[in-house]
Amino acid sequence: MSEREAQHEPRSPNGRRSGVRTILVVGPHPDDAELGIGGTILTLAAAGHTVHLLDMTNGEPTPKGSLERRAKESARAAEILGVASRTTLDLPNRYVMDTIEARTKVAEAIRKIKPDLMLVPYWVDAHPDHVATSHICDAARFQAKLTKTDMAGEPWYPAKILYYHCSHLRIAFPASLIVDVSAQWGRKIDAAKSYASQFDVDGEYPVIDLITRYAAYFGALICAEYGEPLLSREPIGVTDIRDII
Amino acid sequence: MSEREAQHEPRSPNGRRSGVRTILVVGPHPDDAELGIGGTILTLAAAGHTVHLLDMTNGEPTPKGSLERRAKESARAAEILGVASRTTLDLPNRYVMDTIEARTKVAEAIRKIKPDLMLVPYWVDAHPDHVATSHICDAARFQAKLTKTDMAGEPWYPAKILYYHCSHLRIAFPASLIVDVSAQWGRKIDAAKSYASQFDVDGEYPVIDLITRYAAYFGALICAEYGEPLLSREPIGVTDIRDII
Amino acid sequence: MSEREAQHEPRSPNGRRSGVRTILVVGPHPDDAELGIGGTILTLAAAGHTVHLLDMTNGEPTPKGSLERRAKESARAAEILGVASRTTLDLPNRYVMDTIEARTKVAEAIRKIKPDLMLVPYWVDAHPDHVATSHICDAARFQAKLTKTDMAGEPWYPAKILYYHCSHLRIAFPASLIVDVSAQWGRKIDAAKSYASQFDVDGEYPVIDLITRYAAYFGALICAEYGEPLLSREPIGVTDIRDII
Amino acid sequence: MSEREAQHEPRSPNGRRSGVRTILVVGPHPDDAELGIGGTILTLAAAGHTVHLLDMTNGEPTPKGSLERRAKESARAAEILGVASRTTLDLPNRYVMDTIEARTKVAEAIRKIKPDLMLVPYWVDAHPDHVATSHICDAARFQAKLTKTDMAGEPWYPAKILYYHCSHLRIAFPASLIVDVSAQWGRKIDAAKSYASQFDVDGEYPVIDLITRYAAYFGALICAEYGEPLLSREPIGVTDIRDII
Amino acid sequence: MSEREAQHEPRSPNGRRSGVRTILVVGPHPDDAELGIGGTILTLAAAGHTVHLLDMTNGEPTPKGSLERRAKESARAAEILGVASRTTLDLPNRYVMDTIEARTKVAEAIRKIKPDLMLVPYWVDAHPDHVATSHICDAARFQAKLTKTDMAGEPWYPAKILYYHCSHLRIAFPASLIVDVSAQWGRKIDAAKSYASQFDVDGEYPVIDLITRYAAYFGALICAEYGEPLLSREPIGVTDIRDII
Amino acid sequence: MSEREAQHEPRSPNGRRSGVRTILVVGPHPDDAELGIGGTILTLAAAGHTVHLLDMTNGEPTPKGSLERRAKESARAAEILGVASRTTLDLPNRYVMDTIEARTKVAEAIRKIKPDLMLVPYWVDAHPDHVATSHICDAARFQAKLTKTDMAGEPWYPAKILYYHCSHLRIAFPASLIVDVSAQWGRKIDAAKSYASQFDVDGEYPVIDLITRYAAYFGALICAEYGEPLLSREPIGVTDIRDII
Repeated sequence: MSEREAQHEPRSPNGRRSGVRTILVVGPHPDDAELGIGGTILTLAAAGHTVHLLDMTNGEPTPKGSLERRAKESARAAEILGVASRTTLDLPNRYVMDTIEARTKVAEAIRKIKPDLMLVPYWVDAHPDHVATSHICDAARFQAKLTKTDMAGEPWYPAKILYYHCSHLRIAFPASLIVDVSAQWGRKIDAAKSYASQFDVDGEYPVIDLITRYAAYFGALICAEYGEPLLSREPIGVTDIRDII
Repeated sequence: MSEREAQHEPRSPNGRRSGVRTILVVGPHPDDAELGIGGTILTLAAAGHTVHLLDMTNGEPTPKGSLERRAKESARAAEILGVASRTTLDLPNRYVMDTIEARTKVAEAIRKIKPDLMLVPYWVDAHPDHVATSHICDAARFQAKLTKTDMAGEPWYPAKILYYHCSHLRIAFPASLIVDVSAQWGRKIDAAKSYASQFDVDGEYPVIDLITRYAAYFGALICAEYGEPLLSREPIGVTDIRDII
Repeated sequence: MSEREAQHEPRSPNGRRSGVRTILVVGPHPDDAELGIGGTILTLAAAGHTVHLLDMTNGEPTPKGSLERRAKESARAAEILGVASRTTLDLPNRYVMDTIEARTKVAEAIRKIKPDLMLVPYWVDAHPDHVATSHICDAARFQAKLTKTDMAGEPWYPAKILYYHCSHLRIAFPASLIVDVSAQWGRKIDAAKSYASQFDVDGEYPVIDLITRYAAYFGALICAEYGEPLLSREPIGVTDIRDII
Repeated sequence: MSEREAQHEPRSPNGRRSGVRTILVVGPHPDDAELGIGGTILTLAAAGHTVHLLDMTNGEPTPKGSLERRAKESARAAEILGVASRTTLDLPNRYVMDTIEARTKVAEAIRKIKPDLMLVPYWVDAHPDHVATSHICDAARFQAKLTKTDMAGEPWYPAKILYYHCSHLRIAFPASLIVDVSAQWGRKIDAAKSYASQFDVDGEYPVIDLITRYAAYFGALICAEYGEPLLSREPIGVTDIRDII
Repeated sequence: MSEREAQHEPRSPNGRRSGVRTILVVGPHPDDAELGIGGTILTLAAAGHTVHLLDMTNGEPTPKGSLERRAKESARAAEILGVASRTTLDLPNRYVMDTIEARTKVAEAIRKIKPDLMLVPYWVDAHPDHVATSHICDAARFQAKLTKTDMAGEPWYPAKILYYHCSHLRIAFPASLIVDVSAQWGRKIDAAKSYASQFDVDGEYPVIDLITRYAAYFGALICAEYGEPLLSREPIGVTDIRDII
Repeated sequence: MSEREAQHEPRSPNGRRSGVRTILVVGPHPDDAELGIGGTILTLAAAGHTVHLLDMTNGEPTPKGSLERRAKESARAAEILGVASRTTLDLPNRYVMDTIEARTKVAEAIRKIKPDLMLVPYWVDAHPDHVATSHICDAARFQAKLTKTDMAGEPWYPAKILYYHCSHLRIAFPASLIVDVSAQWGRKIDAAKSYASQFDVDGEYPVIDLITRYAAYFGALICAEYGEPLLSREPIGVTDIRDII
């Protein structure tokens, strides 16, 4: 065991209870965060938190996409989501692997953004890029706090990491929490529809039908119109019940 | 399926988001709620919520207790916890069974107190009174919303029910949430120590050592000094992440 | 252990592989089976199986129901579902308890109908009648095969029992199987809407919105329009993969 | 919470580490303990422990049994198993229910036998007598330690309770431990075959084929010839690894 | 998220309900598929489906094997199983790693064979080649549907993937389904015995004793002579109950 | 499947029942084994077993450590623990990856030490070196039994592998067993405190407070002062109940 102390230092200068947090959302490709937790991003931004987006790859090639088109779509989506920044790493689409190099890129982003909370893909998924992204984020969260390295930035340890469901695998997602995103659902769909190159099938958006079903179900479980589930491996601590439905 | 509509009416006049809630804590015997979630009761009361206590039995006979002594102890504990009311039902200590009669007593208490949230014992326990109390509370929560009955009071459906760990069975409790009770731990111990007839063994309080170990562990899992775990069968919904550690 | 042999005799004269089965669906109140597995009932009936319905109670009183109205509604629903028979036991609505008497009533129905498969409510539920029905059915399935009793009928042991989700508790139902009910969804909704006394809220049917969300989600998990989940405690055996989506 | 102290007194005079223990095995009917953990009983007896058997009912009527025949069979089986005593309670076969009266009968047996360990049926089972027996034993274990009662005997709290698999329900039993019973398998089968009235089907013993398959599987999981699984709800503590395969 | 549409196109030209399917079984080494699901392969082939075998490595070196001998054994086993083809990739025995190169080899096999269903090793195993094969297959299933690549063949997405138990790790396998392989057990053993270089220990076949115990147990759980368990991460959908035991 | 026979040969010359075992404890960095299972090491050594320690890396750099200082600390800790040997591999601290090369180093250590039991880190952890170490150990355990290789030493297969909790991730550890380490707790803390470069924060040892809370909790679950949990993926077999608390 090394690097122990870092973990015991104050983890988030914002403080745990003061309120406003910095959140880093990691998506394998531009559009994954939108589909998986676009409503959560909007809900947290509306509550005053600062949300940053990090894409592992530019997402291309795809059947109908191009680098230029995808970049425009993802910029438009970021605007709708109201995020503070969107960064795209240069990892290879379709071939993201859990390497030291990939971890270091994410760790440096963490040291720059200094998030209190990371929202990253669930490690069980049909798409290998999603699986790798999940593992890379776990490792990078730890690596970001190292001292005596040649990584850019100062040591930082995000206090919490939660996993979201990317919709490729049709599993019953094991939710620890469900975020009520009813008030933001319309904007989430707008953000998702920015990716016409990915989702528009002759004017239909089958994947948006799919995520709407998911959200209507998880919403029903918390007596809300729409909900997005999150998984935590560490237990969820609370200081009050005010925000719990 | 009957009594459907009632469930779809606004469930808590206080509203889900306005903030202040009414909470009903049910204990099999006077002292169980104190040991299990005394810190949670104090934390919620300190946050401005209204907490009511309901004991299923007077808890006697016990080796060193008496009706008068136990009643005084439980009144003292209620005072320390700062609860709005404490009611003791006349169910038979040691022989609490899940009957219509027992359910009706709890349902009538629910209709009177009109809680938004119920905190009740976990259904896996070594003490049969605890197991029965858990089942009675589940049934009474539903029964309380019935119309066309001769129960006292108006229909009411507590929006949420959570289960707490009574410390008899040495299981690894499956926490959905852990409440940070660090700031209230001292008062919780005071409340528990009110029950000298139950816990004082020649000046030692072995059960208090036990629950302190539990709370120090669950606290550690959320980076807090002390924590008390709660279990939900329905997923936990959130509207913000502010209260989540 | 008693009554062993009975269990080892041929359990279903129809045979396991010949095809056509007799199915007994048990609902606590008239409308529960419709909401929970109306689509499954219709799908199985359309596939040539014989389905019988057994209600534990007449479901009354309810806020807007009456004995006559409910009976008419449930007869209409049975007609839409195309079941071979619908029987209503005289257990007390709201106060169904797991007693020998209740078990015997269900066991005698089993001995009369001789089902290969029972579909009964899941034992985790907010409504105590549903919980009790689940336990009664488990016990009655066994009791039905007893010899040397004064129960009506001949010994019978339903080869399989599966549990369905009644929609009161907002749990993530632990599905072992999901039945593709897409082709029958419209008729299921018709059957559910027969119960205007239960579900019609000023022309709206909130509970139907709820079950539609559930079915759209479980359908999505199997790449179908609508799905209804079933739980088995015993592993699911298959002889081919033809019917598995 | 009542009766606390009793739980904190030395629980087993034999001591936890000295070695020899007293074990109480509870079976719903004469033959259940034999089928479920006959090998474990023999293995523990061979290791020098004292094992007592308690049947909840006499097991009759059954298709081919009679009171006399069954009593003779169970006496013969007890002899083969080498148990210190076998007691049969007078609860009604087929209709065992979890009542105060039933709990008291078992609690009084516990106060008389003073076991360190109880082995009782798993609470998930097809036979309602088995389910009830499991719940009765949980409650009786606690009730046995009460003071100020009119129960016979002195307070006693069995330090540990483990659950065994009765073979009616074809579930994948969730084993916490598997006992290597290879050396005693032959005698176990002899004990089971004592119950010709129950298991002999024209000279064949189908249930013995079934339990042999189970034991061969659980044995394989621990690299032994035959094994019998046990479930604990409380974690398993060890002081050495010598006895762990 | 990329490559979305492909997933929403018709996934299997054979159609989901017409009946006959194409199945790809992947084994780490020649003999793993035989031991793990030889009975399932035979049962599916007997039902008219087309089964293809893909081995990741030639399986050599082993203590008593040679390249020539193993190849002959595996050809003989394929003949007994009645598979449509058997292909052996040139990945290094003992050192199979989850690399892009390995994924591409399997993805190209998928694009050639166009299976509706993949049967692959469970990812929890003692043998690192098995663990890696499981991960490679998950990734390759996705990679096979990519467009704009230089992989051989046309895009293809197998509609379903199920995991089977290789017998190295003595875990209680978490079965979603159990296939009744009773009618094919003899032939399965013949196929396994083809590998005398692997399993013959002085005329004894200890591993065949082991898998027979497993199959007799899983068979017992579905009231069949022999059964082989399969795990699905996505829920199992059904359109009828005819094929469910 | 290859290398089958080796698995079926006698796995531990010491024999499973004779008593004394050889145990190999693997830690990612010097100090992890001490924190995670220092008490277990001491307890097993005190019971007469032979314990060897293997560190994957030298653990440096760290904020306040140096190669010389860390080496001295780990030698001192080994002395306190009373282990038979301590070996440090030259894998890169912070960047341990699951490669053939790393597996081979551990496999050769296994072939040299010939352990009956391996105690290795749990695969769910915040530190990527811990995750990698867990996977490397699983693979190396298998690789160590290979014949026809150029690895040093003779084939060996450790009969059992158990996983311990490194304290970085604040998960509720899924214990299969808890070792009563009460008698050795003081020495364990001494061993941990050897690592002043890692744990001393101005004279305080926050990580020791953390692991003490864990141990007090897991101890409470088995009615002991202190306990350390272990996880097994294969079921736990027992031949007696003498060592089970």
